[in-house]
Amino acid sequence: MHMTLIKSISEQIPEIEARIRAQLTDKPSLLMTDLEQLIFRGWRNLRPTLTLIFGRMSDADPEALINLAAAIEMLSAATLVHDDLVDVADQRHTGPTINPSFRTSAAVLAGDLAFAAAAQLAAATNWVAVMQKFSETLQFIVSGEITHMFRNGQGVDRDSYYHWIHAKTASLFELACETAILIGTQEDETMSLARQFGYQIGMAYQISNDIRDFSSDTANQEKPIGSSLRQGILSLPAIYYFESHPENPLLHSLLHKNGHSQEDLDGLIVAIRQSKAVERSLDEVRAFGQRGREVLMRLPNTPERAELEQLIGQIITRND
Amino acid sequence: MHMTLIKSISEQIPEIEARIRAQLTDKPSLLMTDLEQLIFRGWRNLRPTLTLIFGRMSDADPEALINLAAAIEMLSAATLVHDDLVDVADQRHTGPTINPSFRTSAAVLAGDLAFAAAAQLAAATNWVAVMQKFSETLQFIVSGEITHMFRNGQGVDRDSYYHWIHAKTASLFELACETAILIGTQEDETMSLARQFGYQIGMAYQISNDIRDFSSDTANQEKPIGSSLRQGILSLPAIYYFESHPENPLLHSLLHKNGHSQEDLDGLIVAIRQSKAVERSLDEVRAFGQRGREVLMRLPNTPERAELEQLIGQIITRND
Repeated sequence: MHMTLIKSISEQIPEIEARIRAQLTDKPSLLMTDLEQLIFRGWRNLRPTLTLIFGRMSDADPEALINLAAAIEMLSAATLVHDDLVDVADQRHTGPTINPSFRTSAAVLAGDLAFAAAAQLAAATNWVAVMQKFSETLQFIVSGEITHMFRNGQGVDRDSYYHWIHAKTASLFELACETAILIGTQEDETMSLARQFGYQIGMAYQISNDIRDFSSDTANQEKPIGSSLRQGILSLPAIYYFESHPENPLLHSLLHKNGHSQEDLDGLIVAIRQSKAVERSLDEVRAFGQRGREVLMRLPNTPERAELEQLIGQIITRND
Repeated sequence: MHMTLIKSISEQIPEIEARIRAQLTDKPSLLMTDLEQLIFRGWRNLRPTLTLIFGRMSDADPEALINLAAAIEMLSAATLVHDDLVDVADQRHTGPTINPSFRTSAAVLAGDLAFAAAAQLAAATNWVAVMQKFSETLQFIVSGEITHMFRNGQGVDRDSYYHWIHAKTASLFELACETAILIGTQEDETMSLARQFGYQIGMAYQISNDIRDFSSDTANQEKPIGSSLRQGILSLPAIYYFESHPENPLLHSLLHKNGHSQEDLDGLIVAIRQSKAVERSLDEVRAFGQRGREVLMRLPNTPERAELEQLIGQIITRND
C-alpha cells in the first residue's frame, strides 16, 4: 500500500511538468526559454508532491490537482523572476550596472506572462476559492519583498528574517497544502492543519537552503559559497554569526553595501562556516521540522501521513 | 427613463472608485500613493461606465459589477506601471539613466501588488469564467508589449500599430464589455456583440488619445506636444506622416533611437501637425466609431443602447 502510494505520486509529477510546459509553449519563445529554465532548474518536486499527497488525503479531483500544482509552480516562477530583478536593481545602488535595461524589460514581461499563466491554471481548477487564496498569497509575497527592500541600512534580526522567508517561501508551501484540501473535502480542521504543516515544512526547507549556501558540498555547482552574502543578503547563519559578533565592522558595511572588499567577504564566509552559527541554524531546521511532525500527529494515521513524515525527515537530514 | 439611467450609472461610479481605494489602503503606503495617483490620474470613467451599462443590459448582480469594474481598472493599472517601466528601460539603451534602480524595484512590486488586487477583486465577482477572461487578457496585453519591445529598428506600419493598441488598450475595453454580459444573462450572441463593441470603442479611444498628443489643446497640461514621439514611439499620426514622407531621415534615426536632436523632433512634430496625417488619423477614429455603431444596431433598442451610442459620439467628436 505504501509503495503503491509512492509510485502513483511520482507518476503524477511528470503530468504536472507537462502541464507547465504546455502553458509555456505558445508564449513568445525569447522569454519563455528563460522562464522554463528557471522553473525546471529550481524544480525539486517538493511542493507539487505535497499538493498531490494532501489532495489524495482530501479525495480531490486528480485533474484539478494537476492544474493546481502547475499553477503554484507558475506563481512561484513569476515572483522569482521579479524578485531577482529587485535584488539586482538593489545592488546597482552602488555597484556597476550588471542588469542591462533590455534584461529588465524582458524580466518584467516574462514575470507578467507567468502571472497570466498561473491565473489561467488556477482558474482551470474551477474553484473561485483557489483564486482568492492565490491572490492573498501573491499579496503576502510582494508585501514581504517590499518590507525587505525598504530594510536597507537597518539591522537585520531573526524576526525579520523569519517574516521574509515566510513571505517568499513558506507562503507558497502553505498554499500548496491548504488548497489541496480546499478543492477536496474542504474540511476546516484538515485545511488549517495542512496550512500549518505547509508553514513548518516551508520554513525548514528555506533555512536548510540558506545553510547549504554556506556548505562546501554545493561549492562546485553554479553558485560560489556564501552567494547570498555576496549579494548583501543576510540569511540565518550570517544573522546568528553577527549576533555573537556585534562588533564586527563588516556588519555595518554589508548593511550599507559599501566599504568591504572581496577578501573581507571571503574571510567572513570562512568565519561563519567555522562558527556555531551553522549548528544553531540547523537547530532551527530541526525545530521547524519537529513542529511539522506535531501538526501531522493531529491528522489520521494514513499512508499519506507517513509520506509527509518521511518528507520532513528528508529535509531535516539533508544538511547532515 | 433615459435620465434615470444616466443618473444611476453616474451614482455607481463613486462606488467603484471607493472599492479601488479600499483595495489600496491596506497596502504599503510608499508604493500605493504612486499607484493611486496613476489610477485616478487616468481615471476617465469610460471603461467602468461601459461595464455598468452592459451589466444593466444583462441584468448582472450590481455588487458583482462593482467588483468587476474595479478589478479591470486595477488590472489596467498593473499593466500600465510595468509598461512605463519597459518604455523607460527601453530609452536607456542610448540615453541617460532616468529611471533609478530603486524606482525600478518599486514599480515592479507596485505592479505586482496591483495584479494581486485585480485578482482579488475579480475573484470577488464569484465567477471562475471572469478569472479565465482576465488571465487571457493579461496574456494578450503582455504578448503585445513583447512584440512591441522586440520591434526595435524595424519599420512601423499601421498593422503593427493596430495590433499594439488592440493589446494595450482595446483588449481591456473588450474585457469590460464582454464580462458584464458574462456575469449576467451570459447570452452568447450578446456577449460576442459586447466584445466587438468594446474592440471598436477601445481602438477609437486610443487613436483619439494619440491624436490629442499632437494637438495644442493639451499642451499646457502635464505633457509636451508629441510626447510619445519624443519617447521614440510612433503612433498613428506619425505613421501616416512617414508613409507620405518615406525619405525623411528622421524615420531611421527614431527607429534606431539615435542621431536626432531636440530641434529635429520639434520640427518633425510641427510638420506632422501641419500635414494631412492628423486628418487621416481622425478618419480612422470615425471609422472605428462607425463600426461600433453598426455593432450596436444588432442589439435591442433600449435606453442602454442609446447610452452607448452617445459614448461613441463623444469619442468621435472629442478631437474636433
